[in-house]
Amino acid sequence: MTPPQRDSEDRPVAALLVPDIIAMLDESPADIAAETEEMHPADLADVAELLERDKLQAFLAALGPARAADVLEYLDEELRTEFLEAITPRQAAELVSQMTPDDRADTLEEISEEHAEEILSEIPSEARKETERLLAYEPDTAGGLMTTEFVSVSADMTIEDTLENVRAVARLGRREAMHVIYTTDTQGRVVGVMSLRELLAAPSGAKISDIAWTEVVSVSPSSDREEVARVIANYDLVAVPVVSESGHIMGVITVDDVIDAIQEEQTEDVQKLGGMEALDEPYSQIGFWRMIKKRAGWLSALFLGEMLTATVLGAYQKEIDRQTVLALFLPLIISSGGNSGSQGTSLLIRALALREVTVPDWWRVARRELATGLTLGLILAVIGFARIELWQAMADHHWTVLGLELGHNYDITMVNELPVFHAGQHDLLALTVAISLVGVVLFGTLVGSMLPFIFRGLGFDPASASAPFIATFVDFTGLIIYFNVALHILLR
Amino acid sequence: MTPPQRDSEDRPVAALLVPDIIAMLDESPADIAAETEEMHPADLADVAELLERDKLQAFLAALGPARAADVLEYLDEELRTEFLEAITPRQAAELVSQMTPDDRADTLEEISEEHAEEILSEIPSEARKETERLLAYEPDTAGGLMTTEFVSVSADMTIEDTLENVRAVARLGRREAMHVIYTTDTQGRVVGVMSLRELLAAPSGAKISDIAWTEVVSVSPSSDREEVARVIANYDLVAVPVVSESGHIMGVITVDDVIDAIQEEQTEDVQKLGGMEALDEPYSQIGFWRMIKKRAGWLSALFLGEMLTATVLGAYQKEIDRQTVLALFLPLIISSGGNSGSQGTSLLIRALALREVTVPDWWRVARRELATGLTLGLILAVIGFARIELWQAMADHHWTVLGLELGHNYDITMVNELPVFHAGQHDLLALTVAISLVGVVLFGTLVGSMLPFIFRGLGFDPASASAPFIATFVDFTGLIIYFNVALHILLR
Repeated sequence: MTPPQRDSEDRPVAALLVPDIIAMLDESPADIAAETEEMHPADLADVAELLERDKLQAFLAALGPARAADVLEYLDEELRTEFLEAITPRQAAELVSQMTPDDRADTLEEISEEHAEEILSEIPSEARKETERLLAYEPDTAGGLMTTEFVSVSADMTIEDTLENVRAVARLGRREAMHVIYTTDTQGRVVGVMSLRELLAAPSGAKISDIAWTEVVSVSPSSDREEVARVIANYDLVAVPVVSESGHIMGVITVDDVIDAIQEEQTEDVQKLGGMEALDEPYSQIGFWRMIKKRAGWLSALFLGEMLTATVLGAYQKEIDRQTVLALFLPLIISSGGNSGSQGTSLLIRALALREVTVPDWWRVARRELATGLTLGLILAVIGFARIELWQAMADHHWTVLGLELGHNYDITMVNELPVFHAGQHDLLALTVAISLVGVVLFGTLVGSMLPFIFRGLGFDPASASAPFIATFVDFTGLIIYFNVALHILLR
Repeated sequence: MTPPQRDSEDRPVAALLVPDIIAMLDESPADIAAETEEMHPADLADVAELLERDKLQAFLAALGPARAADVLEYLDEELRTEFLEAITPRQAAELVSQMTPDDRADTLEEISEEHAEEILSEIPSEARKETERLLAYEPDTAGGLMTTEFVSVSADMTIEDTLENVRAVARLGRREAMHVIYTTDTQGRVVGVMSLRELLAAPSGAKISDIAWTEVVSVSPSSDREEVARVIANYDLVAVPVVSESGHIMGVITVDDVIDAIQEEQTEDVQKLGGMEALDEPYSQIGFWRMIKKRAGWLSALFLGEMLTATVLGAYQKEIDRQTVLALFLPLIISSGGNSGSQGTSLLIRALALREVTVPDWWRVARRELATGLTLGLILAVIGFARIELWQAMADHHWTVLGLELGHNYDITMVNELPVFHAGQHDLLALTVAISLVGVVLFGTLVGSMLPFIFRGLGFDPASASAPFIATFVDFTGLIIYFNVALHILLR
């Protein structure tokens, strides 16, 4: 078997290997481990996902527990849960015992509590207690992300002793977070940090305390994953220690877990921005009714909110009757408010997430968005004014564009023997639309840029201030602005 | 000076240090380097950003070129560019020479071409050529992200020789990507990979070829940064080699640069989803008119697109005149299409970005979204129907809710001596709204979920299928659906 070529685009490797694996399962399961030993567990997980369920256990058994545990870590969550619940607790315990503590806790968190407890009872006592400690943390906090396997040495050790120590630990074959070594004082509190590279570069005979950096960037166990991601990104770290209030290292979070957290967070944000609940599982795997639930909730809430527009329009129906032409510009006016609000909210959600601005900056942002909203409103007002004037000019000359009789709307108004649309009155309509646009865009921009601050201030995720939410919020106010302007200009 | 406490929330450290730094600049610049030597360059960059511009150069000079280069790498882009353009090309060359090759190229890319060339001409020939080679790659590709400093050894070396080699390189003080070591064959092609930890764990006397993994996950120089991020995340790597078609390593991309790329990409996506051009610079730093430009373009385009709604409504003005009540539900109907489209597009943008689905899956997704859209449409239809019936029931009994005379709209209709809204006709209105909602939500869901595929297929960023874009796209079609349903039911 030639080594498969990597192509992450469409993963042909996994699919190609499946027939080979199935053949080997029937003939010589022992060959599987040897044939696949150079493959990355992520690729083997892709193969495993393509196997029929009854072949999966035989495949993982053929790999041996350590390798099978690696593959399980990369396996699709739902399949992993199903698999671990199907085998005996003792078999499952053998596999999860081989995982790193953080992955073991994450894996057990996904399966039913009953199964998880049965599996835990089969795990050696020390590992069980450690796992239970990790399970006590919320999955989205630093405590829930950290692993408890890391290397820390006393600050008074020599470089050579430390290096021997590190080599001994590395030879145990446990997959500690080993890119970084922490140093501790006599009370076991963290006092320094050095990279494996700095350890290797250190002159022989030096002490660890001569080399280690004394300022240790750390997070607390309750820090949320966004904060952890920000620290890792800000300081370009490959690992960050989780330090208790007393200064002891409780665990280490490695960058690979942070990337996964960042991507999950990003998916949640985009889904919330789209005006729905975050799915929490892949689109291609979520059940139909679970997805409906995630979408219908917000969609119905937005619908109920949008009903306010019908109420507002009901209050202005007399004005619509007097000038039906007012109705033609309803969607244009209110969508401009929603769109400008959506821009403001997107900008501020990211600026808040990246800490480019913080809640106390709200007043500075509000003044800036006031000026921005006014400018953008004036731009749209000019376009809107020009459009109506142009439309009227074409109607006066009975031009036909795109097959539509563009003067159509005014003719109808006269046919129905409603108040005739006098010459010059289209100027008043154009003015009404233009002034309304300034007001609506200004209001939308301000609401859109301020809601993320309000959400953050109230402890909600600013990403919930989605474009559809903003639109719903500014639509009925847009109508009120529009009809009030109309009452003062067109309907005077 | 006690070591400052870390608090990434509001960065008090930097602000507190500024007076000390300024005092030392006047009295004993030499102390600055000693007092700040344990600080992370990211924190020093925060201090530097708070200094007055004329103090900045003295501060960086006090740190010495190597440390100053570290600080520059973390400095705000605009300030860094301004600073490097203000000092002499020779001074700038001294600083950028101390940077890693990838950061040097990124830094020079930001400053004006004229200044960059002057600085390049002052850099030693070898480093200059390397920098020019890196500058030739697009910044968003693997070539633009990679550094050319990494460790590779011949596959037939022993473990001990390799370790000595690595220690010697580490002692040079250059900041290579050293978490991973690559092995090459006699032609210099990459044949293996091992982590520093695996090197340390290896038994003495073994050969590198016994230890290294022969399957090397890599990217090509032209891979875009999203692809690089996906590979790093998928295989939990701390570095990925960039390998040419001939199999030679051209550079290495480290995980810290990938995190920065992921965050930039995320910011761009959120801004595009908000219906605007990506800012490409922090919200708090972009100039007023540059921001207006980024927002006004899309806002005007959406406004022009939304004008179609006025045209469509113009064509149906006769129907509005016959039943003004139809106008009341316009915003409700079209916003439901926009909102359901926004949900679909958010889901598919992320699913495509994470490769949970690919373009060939479009038909499977379309069928699923057809069922979803129909279900969601029916849910809103039921709510909408119930609302109108309830409204009418209350109007019949002259109930007043929330201070609004809820029967108001129908009274007005009759006052104006337009066609009387006959008993039972409100059922037809409710039916019109309900059926329209099913059609509009179904259409919105389908358009929203298919546009990301179309954008990807055409080579655009699917994130450009923003909520405002979808809304604009489905608003005028929503009106057409609504009035056609009305013509067949209410206006029959």
